[in-house]
Amino acid sequence: MDLKKLKEEVFQANLDLVKHNLVIFTWGNVSAIDRERGLVVIKPSGVAYDDMTADDMVVLNLEGNVVEGQLKPSSDTPTHIELYKNFPEIGGVVHTHSSYATAWAQAGVDIPIIGTTHADYFASDIPCTRDMTKEEVEGEYEKETGTVIVEAFADKNPNHIPGVIVKNHGPFTWGKDAHEAVHNSVVMEAVAKMALVSKSVNPNVTMNPLLTKKHFDRKHGSNAYYGQK
Amino acid sequence: MDLKKLKEEVFQANLDLVKHNLVIFTWGNVSAIDRERGLVVIKPSGVAYDDMTADDMVVLNLEGNVVEGQLKPSSDTPTHIELYKNFPEIGGVVHTHSSYATAWAQAGVDIPIIGTTHADYFASDIPCTRDMTKEEVEGEYEKETGTVIVEAFADKNPNHIPGVIVKNHGPFTWGKDAHEAVHNSVVMEAVAKMALVSKSVNPNVTMNPLLTKKHFDRKHGSNAYYGQK
Amino acid sequence: MDLKKLKEEVFQANLDLVKHNLVIFTWGNVSAIDRERGLVVIKPSGVAYDDMTADDMVVLNLEGNVVEGQLKPSSDTPTHIELYKNFPEIGGVVHTHSSYATAWAQAGVDIPIIGTTHADYFASDIPCTRDMTKEEVEGEYEKETGTVIVEAFADKNPNHIPGVIVKNHGPFTWGKDAHEAVHNSVVMEAVAKMALVSKSVNPNVTMNPLLTKKHFDRKHGSNAYYGQK
Amino acid sequence: MDLKKLKEEVFQANLDLVKHNLVIFTWGNVSAIDRERGLVVIKPSGVAYDDMTADDMVVLNLEGNVVEGQLKPSSDTPTHIELYKNFPEIGGVVHTHSSYATAWAQAGVDIPIIGTTHADYFASDIPCTRDMTKEEVEGEYEKETGTVIVEAFADKNPNHIPGVIVKNHGPFTWGKDAHEAVHNSVVMEAVAKMALVSKSVNPNVTMNPLLTKKHFDRKHGSNAYYGQK
Repeated sequence: MDLKKLKEEVFQANLDLVKHNLVIFTWGNVSAIDRERGLVVIKPSGVAYDDMTADDMVVLNLEGNVVEGQLKPSSDTPTHIELYKNFPEIGGVVHTHSSYATAWAQAGVDIPIIGTTHADYFASDIPCTRDMTKEEVEGEYEKETGTVIVEAFADKNPNHIPGVIVKNHGPFTWGKDAHEAVHNSVVMEAVAKMALVSKSVNPNVTMNPLLTKKHFDRKHGSNAYYGQK
Repeated sequence: MDLKKLKEEVFQANLDLVKHNLVIFTWGNVSAIDRERGLVVIKPSGVAYDDMTADDMVVLNLEGNVVEGQLKPSSDTPTHIELYKNFPEIGGVVHTHSSYATAWAQAGVDIPIIGTTHADYFASDIPCTRDMTKEEVEGEYEKETGTVIVEAFADKNPNHIPGVIVKNHGPFTWGKDAHEAVHNSVVMEAVAKMALVSKSVNPNVTMNPLLTKKHFDRKHGSNAYYGQK
Repeated sequence: MDLKKLKEEVFQANLDLVKHNLVIFTWGNVSAIDRERGLVVIKPSGVAYDDMTADDMVVLNLEGNVVEGQLKPSSDTPTHIELYKNFPEIGGVVHTHSSYATAWAQAGVDIPIIGTTHADYFASDIPCTRDMTKEEVEGEYEKETGTVIVEAFADKNPNHIPGVIVKNHGPFTWGKDAHEAVHNSVVMEAVAKMALVSKSVNPNVTMNPLLTKKHFDRKHGSNAYYGQK
Repeated sequence: MDLKKLKEEVFQANLDLVKHNLVIFTWGNVSAIDRERGLVVIKPSGVAYDDMTADDMVVLNLEGNVVEGQLKPSSDTPTHIELYKNFPEIGGVVHTHSSYATAWAQAGVDIPIIGTTHADYFASDIPCTRDMTKEEVEGEYEKETGTVIVEAFADKNPNHIPGVIVKNHGPFTWGKDAHEAVHNSVVMEAVAKMALVSKSVNPNVTMNPLLTKKHFDRKHGSNAYYGQK
């Protein structure tokens, strides 16, 4: 894929975070990867969405070295790279501080799968990562943030659960490209809000696992029948 | 009624879901029925509201066969058809994943009638359906979703309670036409939000049944005196 | 005052309810009174805000008879009239079903005075009316709604507490004119929301009565020093 | 700095409060200080944001005397001046009644540091001031409001915790200039909302102090690496 086109996609996906009310100020970033060339395109660090152009997107290799662009990449870049390295099928990554998903992250509690809206996109609870150690926080912090995410997926399929909440921090989502990763960010925020309300109405809420499977499969299974495909 | 006109109405009603902030992406669908011809008009499956035209609406008979339209109908179509078959006076059906109504559905708790806003439109609690069985989930799931809704109304009048929440899923509403069904969707979302807040302030809240009757009747009873009629 | 001017004011005040997100559909009404002539101007019943003109406002005398206007007045008119009769200094009345104030009304709990925002406008808790009796609900219901409001102010000054919540129903506010009554509606909704959140953070919250007095007096006392007057 | 330029900045910063949904009506005010000349520029009292121009900003010296401007300054001016006198590095001050921050103030509870969003801007809990005494409330109330704020920072660095909630009242924030003070207001409101939700999900939530330090330092420490600097 054309790098110019990928920059444009990443740029647009970053603006979509604003459009969907997932970020204020510079509180979010989107990246995408060109798997063939092993190049990641990401938002520059601390630049306001209004001032940004597609050309400001920063290009790095998987060692984290900038290969194109005048600006410093997002400080969260090492987390994105860690995800691309360990989840080989993903093509886009998003990080935000969206209110409800971040609130669950701060609470340190997995977002429970209690509705079909959730099951349409995430095949199980959205996991919350473990506490980071002193070494991880004081060492390569952003890279280690990626490490604890990958660890949380040791027994899970990242293609079926396209997102995570990092404890005390906030959500990361991913998808086959930047656009889908943003879409999954919007979904996570919506289900995070609804889960809060449901728990408040009924603390003992659960969902039949058969219903989970049914909804996930009708959109993502081998016999998916949702949409026009 | 002219099918072209009905398509236009259903198209507009689908856009109204967006206008009233009841849906994001493709998370909702509206249908209407031409009772004389036994034809249902419904939104196509998984098509973005922005890309849709009135001509994209799909026409089916009550056996669920498409009789007009190039696109696949909403995957929820069998639920809509089940409602039209069993509730003979309704002319429009709406399904959304609106936040608060869906949250009550996820909680598996009827939305309690505790205010006159609710009583102006729904004559009692808005019922939540029972858990679906393994056979229902793995069988004709969307049709069976309709079956459990109808079952929930075995002892209730769907014309006086124009909506339901499907457990772990979300709200369905109906009305004499697509427009009124959308209106009732907006109302359900509003009363679902207010009921949450009221319960949080006072878990033991109740309402005098006389007040319920008074409000429902002044809008819908034989001596209704609300509005200009 | 010119009746034409009063109609224009009432019309604008009704539109302001929409602008301030206090009403959807036809869920609110504003009136004003010409004290010299004893004439009340009010929104017509069940008419959408978008379709309304200043000329559609209905004029009634204090016996509740329409003296000008082609449309039926708001079904809540007898409540408004009862307030004008009993609270001689008020010039405008507003009724809405705004989410948080209505939720407190549904909960049947006074909105507690726990902040200076509240004290800047309301000198004490915002009272919730008592349950209405069978006779009141089945009799002249809307007039009796006014009666229970007036009863709630038997030991209170309506000029210092310009609003009330009617149990299981919703808020009424008033002021020296329609504009001020709308303003007080916006304030009540804001303080109702904040009181909910505060109570959720700390169920035992209270406020020093001295602080209440200080804030109310600096805006409304004989030595008021807020604003440009 | 040019006073005209400072007036323009303060004017713009006041309008930004509206843009960020932190204030309705006249419920907020922004000021800035020219340290060299010892002059404070602040919003006039009780003037609607829509009617205001940059020329309406009021200029005072640190004794609280108006030296330029036709209008009365904000009634909260003595609080702003107290902050400028005691926090020598700040250049701008903001006061609002934003919903969630005010709700925590009403609850009388510090906004707990439980997430990195908070730690990116505030190095610890956002403190809530103590109850004011009878003498303080009945004396120079607005000046004493500043006194209790300053007292709350006896053992804290106002440059690392750029805001406070005044008990039963609402938030004050500050920064190197008016713009940064507004920015910190937006942040406080966002973290106040998220803290509420987190506490509701998990009342026992905490955050590793190492993580707090890491996030605050990567933006504000001597080796800060966030952004383009």
